[in-house]
Amino acid sequence: MTRTIVDLQARLFRVPLDEVMSDAKHGDHTHFELVTVTICDSEGLEGTGYTYTGGFGGRAILAMVNHDLRPFLLGKDPSQIEALYDGMQWRVHYVARGGIASFAISAVDIALWDIRGRAEGQPLWRMAGGASNRSKVYRGAIDLNFPYEKLMDNVRGYIAEGFEAVKIKVGQPNLADDVRRAEGVREILGPDRIFAVDANYSLSVPQAIEAANAFKPLNLLWFEEPTIPDDYQGYARIADATGVPLAMGENLHTIHEFEYAVDQAKLSFLQPDASNCGGVTGFLRVAHLCAQHGIPVCSHGMQELHVSLVGAQPNAGWVEVHSFPIDRYTTRPLVHEGLHAVAPDTPGTGVVFAWERLAPYAIHA
Amino acid sequence: MTRTIVDLQARLFRVPLDEVMSDAKHGDHTHFELVTVTICDSEGLEGTGYTYTGGFGGRAILAMVNHDLRPFLLGKDPSQIEALYDGMQWRVHYVARGGIASFAISAVDIALWDIRGRAEGQPLWRMAGGASNRSKVYRGAIDLNFPYEKLMDNVRGYIAEGFEAVKIKVGQPNLADDVRRAEGVREILGPDRIFAVDANYSLSVPQAIEAANAFKPLNLLWFEEPTIPDDYQGYARIADATGVPLAMGENLHTIHEFEYAVDQAKLSFLQPDASNCGGVTGFLRVAHLCAQHGIPVCSHGMQELHVSLVGAQPNAGWVEVHSFPIDRYTTRPLVHEGLHAVAPDTPGTGVVFAWERLAPYAIHA
Ligand SMILES: [Mg+2]
Ligand SMILES: [Mg+2]
Repeated sequence: MTRTIVDLQARLFRVPLDEVMSDAKHGDHTHFELVTVTICDSEGLEGTGYTYTGGFGGRAILAMVNHDLRPFLLGKDPSQIEALYDGMQWRVHYVARGGIASFAISAVDIALWDIRGRAEGQPLWRMAGGASNRSKVYRGAIDLNFPYEKLMDNVRGYIAEGFEAVKIKVGQPNLADDVRRAEGVREILGPDRIFAVDANYSLSVPQAIEAANAFKPLNLLWFEEPTIPDDYQGYARIADATGVPLAMGENLHTIHEFEYAVDQAKLSFLQPDASNCGGVTGFLRVAHLCAQHGIPVCSHGMQELHVSLVGAQPNAGWVEVHSFPIDRYTTRPLVHEGLHAVAPDTPGTGVVFAWERLAPYAIHA
Repeated sequence: MTRTIVDLQARLFRVPLDEVMSDAKHGDHTHFELVTVTICDSEGLEGTGYTYTGGFGGRAILAMVNHDLRPFLLGKDPSQIEALYDGMQWRVHYVARGGIASFAISAVDIALWDIRGRAEGQPLWRMAGGASNRSKVYRGAIDLNFPYEKLMDNVRGYIAEGFEAVKIKVGQPNLADDVRRAEGVREILGPDRIFAVDANYSLSVPQAIEAANAFKPLNLLWFEEPTIPDDYQGYARIADATGVPLAMGENLHTIHEFEYAVDQAKLSFLQPDASNCGGVTGFLRVAHLCAQHGIPVCSHGMQELHVSLVGAQPNAGWVEVHSFPIDRYTTRPLVHEGLHAVAPDTPGTGVVFAWERLAPYAIHA
């Protein structure tokens, strides 16, 4: 007998950050929003997926899950993930092609993969490719507003926590300040640790070329989002003019955007985020696209899930250990040591929320 | 003294259509959703904007207006429309770059232009460029599910209503059926009336090339959305292979998508929709982009507003008289005769809702 989806419950949380964190284009972050989707099937299996935002859009995501996706999903077979994925995309296509719909579909898709893993007794890293249960990790800070000394202390803290790779924000009003801060971080890291910077698309193409040239002595792993993610050809001009490796992906939501990126942007790394590019299904499609183009696939955000997706690929890049501590509210915060993190072996995604810790932050929409 | 926004009220309506209408990719339409946004300023001026959907996403749009945009707008100067537009875009950027946010921002932006026009005593067609208060119009049907004879009767009805230009849907399972239906319509229209077809991106590029070649004897004004809007280069391949004029735009939401379209898609017409490309501000940016590339700017949907935007441009194309009869719920349904429609001369957008007619369809979210 075919299993069917008998219930779907979506929840919204607005979780405060320990301190105010800033980047060059989103301003101050004081909270992150978490939208969880729990799906139950007719055999009593339950799976939970989720997405997150930097503080805006959570109510809209919740509304789309509840009013547009839920009626479509009830009664469907949860094992037909790829068909449900495409069905959701076409159902809301007119108001989608990215944006809120990508976040909503991602949360549902991850819940379906959680059910699939539980039904098959498989951990996500095996279902996602199985190349390895280990992923290289770096610590990604949101620290543009930190004064110089605080920035240095913060990086020292990451080293003390065992990280061997660190990314900081750039995009100060004066490039000289960015360079001074980055030089200080490189000195603390030493020549062998891995170092990257992230401008959150705050620069024009000419500004980005100037900055990339100024960063050259720092031996960066990559220069992330120097300019707006929409300008694929602008990325190529920066890469051609400087030779500095470029990375982006956290703001690309559809497979077509990723296709344009691999075709036109001359990126050295792609950084999809399963929370906004279509969940596990969307992430895997991007990972395969990257493999076809010989590009390492990395991740942005929600490390507790991506640790099962990145290392599993033959073209594995780096998992970002992001500054939104979603995993603090799960039963298994990220397990990492030095350059590597280890994926959970439990059936399903391995991301189990500690609901009692989230309860104080619930938004009753 | 600077005026400030003191209130914003958003409303959602789910309006039934007179009959079920289908296209090749969105399936059956039974309703359209209308989201209205009414903004009041400190001098007592009031403006109303709106957006619409094919039946999904309305609640998400409403949620974003109320929870993400409203807190940003209250207290701001409503006359600073361009700054507010950019401010809204950046505020929700992480969950935007198209999708629901584009619809939400559009509704707000149109309300701000309504206030601007009322404050300055100017009708929209003058504020939008003022080239003319008259626009060429065509009747756009959603008729893929209509049997052959009903399709022919429908087109005869449009001619009886005075239309000199008609568009039908294509994308039947067999191209031969599309050709037969289109030949029948061309016969009814005669050689001099204007005729276009719309596949709602249901075809692959090779299928679209085959279809375009088959449509050649019909002397089409354009072949609309032959393939997915994301594949700009695919459009160029269809144009190069067939020479048939192509059109799209209703599914492009950001100025960057339109930039890629004019650069790479070899389109003969662009069809932005102010309800989903950023309101009047977004539409005008697209219109100027089209002018720079020598492309006529047309419109999709909500003819009661676009009649004031298209003819006002030096590169005016065609206003679609769409099958969602939003103007039936306004105090001035579209005024048209033959090839032309006439923009209202009242200050503001000239679109004033007859709330009592909408009341039965209100959704209390
Ligand atoms: Mg980043
Ligand atoms: Mg169309």
